[in-house]
Amino acid sequence: MMHIAVVNVNTSRGMTEEIRRAAVAAASDGTEIYATQPHFGPESVEGSYDSFISAAAVLDVLAMLPAQTAGVVLAGFGEHGREGARELLDVPVVDITEAAAMLAQLLGARYGVLTTLQRCVVQIEDSLRTAGLLQRCATIEATGLGVLEVDTSSRSTLDALERAGQRALEKGADVICLGCAGMVGAAEELGARLGVPVVDGVAAAVQLVEALINLGLRTSKHGPFATPLVKARPGWPPRA
Amino acid sequence: MMHIAVVNVNTSRGMTEEIRRAAVAAASDGTEIYATQPHFGPESVEGSYDSFISAAAVLDVLAMLPAQTAGVVLAGFGEHGREGARELLDVPVVDITEAAAMLAQLLGARYGVLTTLQRCVVQIEDSLRTAGLLQRCATIEATGLGVLEVDTSSRSTLDALERAGQRALEKGADVICLGCAGMVGAAEELGARLGVPVVDGVAAAVQLVEALINLGLRTSKHGPFATPLVKARPGWPPRA
Amino acid sequence: MMHIAVVNVNTSRGMTEEIRRAAVAAASDGTEIYATQPHFGPESVEGSYDSFISAAAVLDVLAMLPAQTAGVVLAGFGEHGREGARELLDVPVVDITEAAAMLAQLLGARYGVLTTLQRCVVQIEDSLRTAGLLQRCATIEATGLGVLEVDTSSRSTLDALERAGQRALEKGADVICLGCAGMVGAAEELGARLGVPVVDGVAAAVQLVEALINLGLRTSKHGPFATPLVKARPGWPPRA
Amino acid sequence: MMHIAVVNVNTSRGMTEEIRRAAVAAASDGTEIYATQPHFGPESVEGSYDSFISAAAVLDVLAMLPAQTAGVVLAGFGEHGREGARELLDVPVVDITEAAAMLAQLLGARYGVLTTLQRCVVQIEDSLRTAGLLQRCATIEATGLGVLEVDTSSRSTLDALERAGQRALEKGADVICLGCAGMVGAAEELGARLGVPVVDGVAAAVQLVEALINLGLRTSKHGPFATPLVKARPGWPPRA
Amino acid sequence: MMHIAVVNVNTSRGMTEEIRRAAVAAASDGTEIYATQPHFGPESVEGSYDSFISAAAVLDVLAMLPAQTAGVVLAGFGEHGREGARELLDVPVVDITEAAAMLAQLLGARYGVLTTLQRCVVQIEDSLRTAGLLQRCATIEATGLGVLEVDTSSRSTLDALERAGQRALEKGADVICLGCAGMVGAAEELGARLGVPVVDGVAAAVQLVEALINLGLRTSKHGPFATPLVKARPGWPPRA
Amino acid sequence: MMHIAVVNVNTSRGMTEEIRRAAVAAASDGTEIYATQPHFGPESVEGSYDSFISAAAVLDVLAMLPAQTAGVVLAGFGEHGREGARELLDVPVVDITEAAAMLAQLLGARYGVLTTLQRCVVQIEDSLRTAGLLQRCATIEATGLGVLEVDTSSRSTLDALERAGQRALEKGADVICLGCAGMVGAAEELGARLGVPVVDGVAAAVQLVEALINLGLRTSKHGPFATPLVKARPGWPPRA
Repeated sequence: MMHIAVVNVNTSRGMTEEIRRAAVAAASDGTEIYATQPHFGPESVEGSYDSFISAAAVLDVLAMLPAQTAGVVLAGFGEHGREGARELLDVPVVDITEAAAMLAQLLGARYGVLTTLQRCVVQIEDSLRTAGLLQRCATIEATGLGVLEVDTSSRSTLDALERAGQRALEKGADVICLGCAGMVGAAEELGARLGVPVVDGVAAAVQLVEALINLGLRTSKHGPFATPLVKARPGWPPRA
Repeated sequence: MMHIAVVNVNTSRGMTEEIRRAAVAAASDGTEIYATQPHFGPESVEGSYDSFISAAAVLDVLAMLPAQTAGVVLAGFGEHGREGARELLDVPVVDITEAAAMLAQLLGARYGVLTTLQRCVVQIEDSLRTAGLLQRCATIEATGLGVLEVDTSSRSTLDALERAGQRALEKGADVICLGCAGMVGAAEELGARLGVPVVDGVAAAVQLVEALINLGLRTSKHGPFATPLVKARPGWPPRA
Repeated sequence: MMHIAVVNVNTSRGMTEEIRRAAVAAASDGTEIYATQPHFGPESVEGSYDSFISAAAVLDVLAMLPAQTAGVVLAGFGEHGREGARELLDVPVVDITEAAAMLAQLLGARYGVLTTLQRCVVQIEDSLRTAGLLQRCATIEATGLGVLEVDTSSRSTLDALERAGQRALEKGADVICLGCAGMVGAAEELGARLGVPVVDGVAAAVQLVEALINLGLRTSKHGPFATPLVKARPGWPPRA
Repeated sequence: MMHIAVVNVNTSRGMTEEIRRAAVAAASDGTEIYATQPHFGPESVEGSYDSFISAAAVLDVLAMLPAQTAGVVLAGFGEHGREGARELLDVPVVDITEAAAMLAQLLGARYGVLTTLQRCVVQIEDSLRTAGLLQRCATIEATGLGVLEVDTSSRSTLDALERAGQRALEKGADVICLGCAGMVGAAEELGARLGVPVVDGVAAAVQLVEALINLGLRTSKHGPFATPLVKARPGWPPRA
Repeated sequence: MMHIAVVNVNTSRGMTEEIRRAAVAAASDGTEIYATQPHFGPESVEGSYDSFISAAAVLDVLAMLPAQTAGVVLAGFGEHGREGARELLDVPVVDITEAAAMLAQLLGARYGVLTTLQRCVVQIEDSLRTAGLLQRCATIEATGLGVLEVDTSSRSTLDALERAGQRALEKGADVICLGCAGMVGAAEELGARLGVPVVDGVAAAVQLVEALINLGLRTSKHGPFATPLVKARPGWPPRA
Repeated sequence: MMHIAVVNVNTSRGMTEEIRRAAVAAASDGTEIYATQPHFGPESVEGSYDSFISAAAVLDVLAMLPAQTAGVVLAGFGEHGREGARELLDVPVVDITEAAAMLAQLLGARYGVLTTLQRCVVQIEDSLRTAGLLQRCATIEATGLGVLEVDTSSRSTLDALERAGQRALEKGADVICLGCAGMVGAAEELGARLGVPVVDGVAAAVQLVEALINLGLRTSKHGPFATPLVKARPGWPPRA
């Protein structure tokens, strides 16, 4: 049994459950998904202030993962913290931002990202640039929906995604990444509407972390992701 | 049963068999590997002249894959042809160059590639640049071994790989990609010697193509990878 | 007498003749043009599948050029194979893609490329990126015409080129490259309509290869363009 | 009286005091420096795990700055959090990483950064890339000293800085940035030894934030740095 | 008393006076502004021909600055010559192009530049690229006004700036740089109209050169900005 | 008869004559070379101060070229002014920096530049970056010789060039550009010593400007190279 932890980056239990279901659906037989969320922080992450609080809160959770955890998915699109998680853990860590962009690059020539609010666009661009995955990104398009407004069972959410997707295709994308963990249920319907592959980051990341585990690959401890130094960190973690 | 075709890009049967074994070892239960090779072309691909002949020869083979093929691995590191394969086929196509670089990027901060002859370095650099994966490549180091000289059961091959790997670490790499399909057997031993993750492209690509198939994702036909137009191609394919 | 081979990349005899006439018109006194075409492959190259078949077919032709050939023009815009040709031959090899972009860069600040189908745009972008000539490219605009539909004696072709050219100027281009060997006859009329220099790649490449020959310069054999290694290439070339 | 808050990113009181003294020395007459530090987190920040905890802890402190604060200096070189601070606050926020690189770019053609441990190099590179200031960085050189080992009154620290500085000059730098807030006292001596300008980030940032305040400029609230949305953030801040 | 020379790059006395007033307004107490202009050259700089004449004329003026000059502002947006000035002088030299872009990068995520004529756009882009400051530039928008037509006391100038500014915001800018020394009086009104920070280069440069002087920093003489070699320069300077 | 003006950028008559001879040697039959030099300015250009004076002095000369001039070569490697020349003139203008880099890119995979003093390296890098030709430059190596010390008939100059060339090959270059107009006589001998093609910029530029003239191509007047506006330029030109 392969145990994978999927970490929602916000404190909304509903969204953790949604992400869990998507991860379970994407996981292979024999994979056990453990979905969790931070002990503190914003109920939705929309912007860098939230994202940096969330990054620390996620690192807090990662320090207490079940012992059998063989790999981790960070389920926040464009959010901060992945390099810290790779330092903290020896097991593979996959960020849904990278995962979605990578699979998209295997399926098309240029990918587009659909996100929530306009204010998140630059942060996603910066995240992809740091990850070395920006070159083949044609555009990042905002739907105008807040994270908690995204409801992939509603027509208005799907319509907003379709409009943003059409703009992405017009700008040269031939494959679409869902740029928010909460959009996870829209992939199939949106793909049918747009006629192009739609990659959900949570599903992509679950598959990628399984791939790394299957190949026995673990995070490099030779360079910047070496284990954090032993030192005093007063007041951390904040619990208790 | 998931059927994956793994295409050696040269006409050396020994190497096809070696690649097949590596692919089988990397594949999940329930995956059937079909290893094949071109009907014509160089017995080893070292340089662009060979690579372009091989690209056409690989496209020739891809046109006649078994009907049940659900995904394809192109097993030539830094070789040409992937965009043509993505046009020709609807099923996912994963190039071992991209696959190795992607998994490496999930494991470390900067990756290094070990290749055969010095003459191949620029071609690999160009392949990674076109793939949008060059930014986090620290260096591409040649071992000085020709493709058919690589023998991962011999000490001298492993020593040459270790020396090239050490140079890569000194230039900032913290994870290593094996930059030749024939190096496939060296990953474990080299990882032990260097103390960093070593990613073999064939194994990486098998896992990635399985991931795409598991998620029901297929190549985009909306953009440049649309099916080739119907037209006269006299003398093609060259067989019989 | 300076002998220059101009290689059409498709198997359309009409287009070879058209290219030959353009090359002769662009050549200096004392230059003899030898126009040729592949022995196999697509009658028009539109996309990467065609382009990779064509690359191999062109390499096949290049191996049998007349002995007195002093330089070669590859007459396919954005097509693959130039690095292979530079390995195979000692004489200078000029790709019309590079040639057009270079001369354009000497005439204006930002150039635009007009091509045939939308599906070719990314391939041309990738070709210019690999050639290190993308930075000053303002845009690549498709006319929507297939390669064999381009008829520079017809008003509708010229109108389509003018419309695409206007879009390029609006996006910042101040010089235009004709991005298809078949557009060769449109340079003068299009220049008059748009009021900017229009560079035809075949003419540019003929002049550049003459320049290299005049200066006694030949392809470097010190690096990646060293002569292909002697090895078995069963079934290659495909003729006979 | 202009009130500027200077925020040490770690919880070492000694370092806060050192930074305070440097800020006071760099400040103009009429500027009041308020030096502070996080309520929780690592006593030194060396790597991304520490840096992300610190980023949240710094945001926590920034939410409770004295009302008269007219500008903020983030005194962690290459650390995370600046975009979040710019969202949270209306007053100008200057990161010492950007400040040092900017002044260096006004003084020389290519700058080098001296940092503490090798593990910090990639993080600084990523920070400069995100800030759009990497192009003119010749190199980032590690001294091998931990943050709390840096003692600019000791000969061994100065010798280590000089050695790293010499390596930077050999790689093309003609101006040096001190890449750690704790190196603040070494600028003058190191400049004398190396014969090039040495820019301390804390001093640079104090001057830059004064410049912004003098010109009446405040953080843009039109784009991604708009004030964080009102929402539930359970358990945040962690105090009380 | 700190003496700063502000050099208008054209020979229009009215503009020198306008720039002087802006510099005085931006300078701190205790700073003395010495505004000057070339002895020869264009009355307005619009394009590279003017810009290169102006660069030499500015270098001529810089060779005769008052002895007490502690720093220099080059008051031409996107104009040539800054590297030459840095060679000639030991005191800090700040170009308003760099100054505006730097302060803008501290205030927002992406900046836009408003300039005079369309023909100046590429030159400004090239200047920012050479300065290593182009990455975060969202767009450069022309108002269509010639340098001497810009009259920041007129409604039509302000309206033209507002229209260009709106286009910049639509393309992703969240902070605006005034891309012409003559726009210096428009910052406040334009900021009010657009709702974003507006950075005037002259004011920014005065503050930056003060900052460098305050910190005792001078131009590096170790690298390419070493003092010009002693040699014959017949006919230079052109006065007599 | 095709008349081409070749403009030495310094005021050394000996060097003008040397350049003239090289240009004549490179020119085709029927081309008349008119070699000239500025009326004022440095006797050698080594650094940006000299380069900007020279740029204006060259523009002065260009305004008085013989009426029959059909094209212009700017014979200063890495020097400023080319964009101004393209504004001033309708006939094609070729900078030897661009010309050498372009022909080098047609001959090898990565080119190296050999220059005079170390202080010139960054300026050449910036010139190539602005020209959009830096990507394939492996390195720029200084010989340590001043411009007027270069004597291609002396063994010590050739030895210095060979040493710099060897360093370039070790850094990945497979073709060499002579990065100073005064190195013009060394191409053949250096090529024999290094075993790679050596491109002299003057010869390359003469051939390129002939190519443009042969094709009837002239500088674009549609964009930034439109003819300079009519305006007062008091004191310019400085003669008389």
